[in-house]
Amino acid sequence: MTVDYKIFELGDVSLQRGATIRGAKLAYKTYGTLSPAKDNVIVYPTWYSGQHYENEWLIGPGRALDPDKYFIIVPNMLGNGLSSSPSNTPEPYNGPRFPQITAYDNVMVQHRLVTELFGIEHVRLVTGWSMGALQTFHWGALFPDMMDLIAPFCGSAKCSRHNFVFLEGVKAALTADAAFAEGWYVDKPARGLRAMARVYAGWGFSQAFYREKLDIEALGYSSLEDFLVAFWEGFFLPKDANNLLTMLWTWQNGDISDNPLYGGDLKAALGAIKAKAFVMPGQTDLYFPPEDSEFEVAHMPNATLVPVPSIWGHFAGGPGTNPTDVDFIDAKLKDLLAS
Amino acid sequence: MTVDYKIFELGDVSLQRGATIRGAKLAYKTYGTLSPAKDNVIVYPTWYSGQHYENEWLIGPGRALDPDKYFIIVPNMLGNGLSSSPSNTPEPYNGPRFPQITAYDNVMVQHRLVTELFGIEHVRLVTGWSMGALQTFHWGALFPDMMDLIAPFCGSAKCSRHNFVFLEGVKAALTADAAFAEGWYVDKPARGLRAMARVYAGWGFSQAFYREKLDIEALGYSSLEDFLVAFWEGFFLPKDANNLLTMLWTWQNGDISDNPLYGGDLKAALGAIKAKAFVMPGQTDLYFPPEDSEFEVAHMPNATLVPVPSIWGHFAGGPGTNPTDVDFIDAKLKDLLAS
Repeated sequence: MTVDYKIFELGDVSLQRGATIRGAKLAYKTYGTLSPAKDNVIVYPTWYSGQHYENEWLIGPGRALDPDKYFIIVPNMLGNGLSSSPSNTPEPYNGPRFPQITAYDNVMVQHRLVTELFGIEHVRLVTGWSMGALQTFHWGALFPDMMDLIAPFCGSAKCSRHNFVFLEGVKAALTADAAFAEGWYVDKPARGLRAMARVYAGWGFSQAFYREKLDIEALGYSSLEDFLVAFWEGFFLPKDANNLLTMLWTWQNGDISDNPLYGGDLKAALGAIKAKAFVMPGQTDLYFPPEDSEFEVAHMPNATLVPVPSIWGHFAGGPGTNPTDVDFIDAKLKDLLAS
Repeated sequence: MTVDYKIFELGDVSLQRGATIRGAKLAYKTYGTLSPAKDNVIVYPTWYSGQHYENEWLIGPGRALDPDKYFIIVPNMLGNGLSSSPSNTPEPYNGPRFPQITAYDNVMVQHRLVTELFGIEHVRLVTGWSMGALQTFHWGALFPDMMDLIAPFCGSAKCSRHNFVFLEGVKAALTADAAFAEGWYVDKPARGLRAMARVYAGWGFSQAFYREKLDIEALGYSSLEDFLVAFWEGFFLPKDANNLLTMLWTWQNGDISDNPLYGGDLKAALGAIKAKAFVMPGQTDLYFPPEDSEFEVAHMPNATLVPVPSIWGHFAGGPGTNPTDVDFIDAKLKDLLAS
């Protein structure tokens, strides 16, 4: 099997919640060439369960994220199956014993990748979808002097209480399957993964998306049930349940202020983000509603709210599902990079 | 145990999908006194998993639904544990063999209760929350000459595709529990019921409800987790899983046009509703969004859209959870009854 990514050996990583991953690994892929001045860098973290290649829909010649101009680094989130994860970590921290990972932990090791491995001191842009946006906000708040621009889309700086509850439902559905065995499964908990997928299905796309039958008319599924099985169950079934739960915990506990710099003061953390920011919520996103982004923008010194005018719900932001939304986000990223 | 409701013996009821419930029972309760002219009748069906006493928050002296003025009939939905249900039907139609029940089936037996038992030929008002609204729409479409007024609140005439998907998630979470045993459980599938509750929690109240911490500030729970356990898990744990699935199927397949009168033509069915109607969606209801109600009103000859201005999501409509919303709905029902 050809592997299209590289591993940055992190050594022993002490985590925010106390555990240490020994021999921790950060999987990443880069696109384009680092300029001699090291001034053409874009960092583009992954989303919930996504891996680097699932970020590629926004990268390409002629796109804002143009590898002919920029050196684009896509770090894989811890827990996503390529970077250190429950599924690939040796005993004793394997499986359900894999430690709790915060978005802070993720961005701290990404920062090491950028600075230690590549010797990069300044980043032009950090951007990402969903949990990628959560990491983008963290970059902005934890390293405010390090980048010019950030563009978090369809995500938030802190997991909202409603978003937390939605994820509780997802988690409960997955873990209700006895085959999950509190994470000590041998065969995968297929029924729980399928249940999780069906719970997710109602949240991922908006009411209007389903009303307009875009599952059939735009995405080409043959029926609503076909969409639930082929798209949603097909999406989650290949994934490792403990990996999914690790990233879910990261998501639920995401908060740019939950660290020594800001001591839980979200407004202070938002206020510390110096980068020029386009905060881009999906207009119909059910778990990252635009109202939460408005709050963020109101407390950031240099941010503009740029809603994505779409009925694709959370999937307005990716992964390349709707060409119109892709073009909108790409155009806004071009505007931001040109500014 | 004192029983506060009565049973109308339906005899053998042949259902829309083909099965027959032999010795079928319709549990109901009435409030107030039927006038000699039998012209003071309100029919007020129950909601998903609700029983008659859980409709009482809207009934009382001084309320629109005033038992000093009106004869209010609350029929319990089939499957709700009091009327014929999986939990109380003898073999062979017990448990998971209980047949599929449509809203049409429900309203047809309610019509028999009203006409055969009470000899009532005309109804002043039909109203109800959620699945009670679904039944209200059915009353309007199936017996258009029989009532003056309808007031469906936080519900729809046909289950939308998105609403269907939300319910698929609820169902998948409940049935992922191996203890459910495809409905042949001996001990209740507690883990599945708890999972179902957590899935439901994100849908029942709006993003703004959680953002404003109304679970704590208004409802008095001690934390978000306390709300999830005490309110939500506490709500579903006492209920029978097969009953819940029977009503869920009724909900998912709700459609006022799915019958010989209208042959699937929803616009025709809406257009046939002669009653003066207040259609009252919750402004922030996540599964019955106002847009769907707008469509209904646009195709009804005598209907007005009356959104409930509330951030309580679906619970703007009940069951008496938020006093402000209760007063709003009560006031609108008074307006309607006075017209």
